[in-house]
Amino acid sequence: MVDFIYGHWAIMETLRAGRRQIDQFLVSETIEEKGTTADILATAAEKSVNVKRVPRRILDDLVPDGASHQGMVMRVSDYPYSTIEDILALAKRRAERPFLLVLDLLKDPQNVGSLMRVADAVGVHGIVMQDRRGVAITPAVVNASSGAVEHLHVVQVTNLTQAMKTLKEQDIWLVGMDIGPNVPPVDKTDLNMSLGIVLGSEGEGMRRLVRDTCDMLLCLPMRGAVASLNVATVGSVALYAAWQARGWNGWAHAEKPNL
Amino acid sequence: MVDFIYGHWAIMETLRAGRRQIDQFLVSETIEEKGTTADILATAAEKSVNVKRVPRRILDDLVPDGASHQGMVMRVSDYPYSTIEDILALAKRRAERPFLLVLDLLKDPQNVGSLMRVADAVGVHGIVMQDRRGVAITPAVVNASSGAVEHLHVVQVTNLTQAMKTLKEQDIWLVGMDIGPNVPPVDKTDLNMSLGIVLGSEGEGMRRLVRDTCDMLLCLPMRGAVASLNVATVGSVALYAAWQARGWNGWAHAEKPNL
Repeated sequence: MVDFIYGHWAIMETLRAGRRQIDQFLVSETIEEKGTTADILATAAEKSVNVKRVPRRILDDLVPDGASHQGMVMRVSDYPYSTIEDILALAKRRAERPFLLVLDLLKDPQNVGSLMRVADAVGVHGIVMQDRRGVAITPAVVNASSGAVEHLHVVQVTNLTQAMKTLKEQDIWLVGMDIGPNVPPVDKTDLNMSLGIVLGSEGEGMRRLVRDTCDMLLCLPMRGAVASLNVATVGSVALYAAWQARGWNGWAHAEKPNL
Repeated sequence: MVDFIYGHWAIMETLRAGRRQIDQFLVSETIEEKGTTADILATAAEKSVNVKRVPRRILDDLVPDGASHQGMVMRVSDYPYSTIEDILALAKRRAERPFLLVLDLLKDPQNVGSLMRVADAVGVHGIVMQDRRGVAITPAVVNASSGAVEHLHVVQVTNLTQAMKTLKEQDIWLVGMDIGPNVPPVDKTDLNMSLGIVLGSEGEGMRRLVRDTCDMLLCLPMRGAVASLNVATVGSVALYAAWQARGWNGWAHAEKPNL
């Protein structure tokens, strides 16, 4: 199988990460070689990737309806999924307690992409997701993640509850994000521990068995007229709360002694 | 001027909030009256709003290209903008220190809508935004906010810096969300104060004068491969950090004594 990756940052990060085989890099004949476009073409040249100029309508046919390819499409090999062992090995290599995101049947590529971008920003070691009925790492997800997913360990599993049990055997604490009124708020627990944040699907939330497998449920309080939040919002706030609890470890900040 | 509001939650909250005059409520002939659709039609009946059944293609023509109207469009009067006085009066009525969101020239209705939904969830008293070159409260924003914006005080100003100075005269502390490396992280300050969170536009950030008018700059740390975050993500995390600092005031939680 092949993927057609599209859009500036999706293509830039696919090139930078270098985890996929690149078959073809198609660029619109009419694109101007300046700004981000020039940077991407320079990166392609560094990586010895050949660029082929084509009419724009050829690119239009290679991306989902309504998607904006920004004049570039890259034909590459499948997304390189990882294993749970890869995730744990990365945590060990960084000498950090494992920090994971667990997704139960999310449906919207935009939400999954947004969450991947935040997961990258806060330094999660990997993402575990159910492999059928939920979203896979499609070009739309790569695009929505601004290419962040190319740098992440993403694991697809056939049985999410089973995978969660495997994580628990590694002393990873699984915190499901749920909605009130009987669920404590996100700051009620010290999230500075070996942690997996579990998110349910849009609308339905976590499946019963997934919820029951969590060690703890937390919520984001809400006091507004509208009674729900987008799952990407909930996940973003929870991931940042967890990284804050870890003291922003790994942040290359100017004030830090190691810079 | 009139607006054509579309989509389930946008229409439901426009009905519930009751701040606009409703001219026509058009519903697709083929829609099934069950679930959310039935709830919306019941709410319309309660409010004595007449429903007109029309062919679906008529609805298609009334919404932006590619937008999903979910079989319903409502022709209503303009969005009812508020004033800064309205915002301050609401804070006073709730006996809370003012809590505002200030938007500098955001361009993407999806981002503005997402931020409005979170602003509603955390109980901000109002939003102040620049009136030209940025996004206004269009039907696309109402839709992206799941209708939350119908319940919020949104103020459009011709000069954002001037409006910020007005807020400062009311002892409201303005915190701009910026990017590193010399900016302290969001948890470096106690956000439990009279507060306005200031967000810059996608890509460019805050304009120079807007940034200079802030009392303080904070950032969300990032340690990933991708060097930026979506402005709606940054705003969501900052708004939740501020509400957490306020001890989730106003949250109708089951554990709270007032429930």
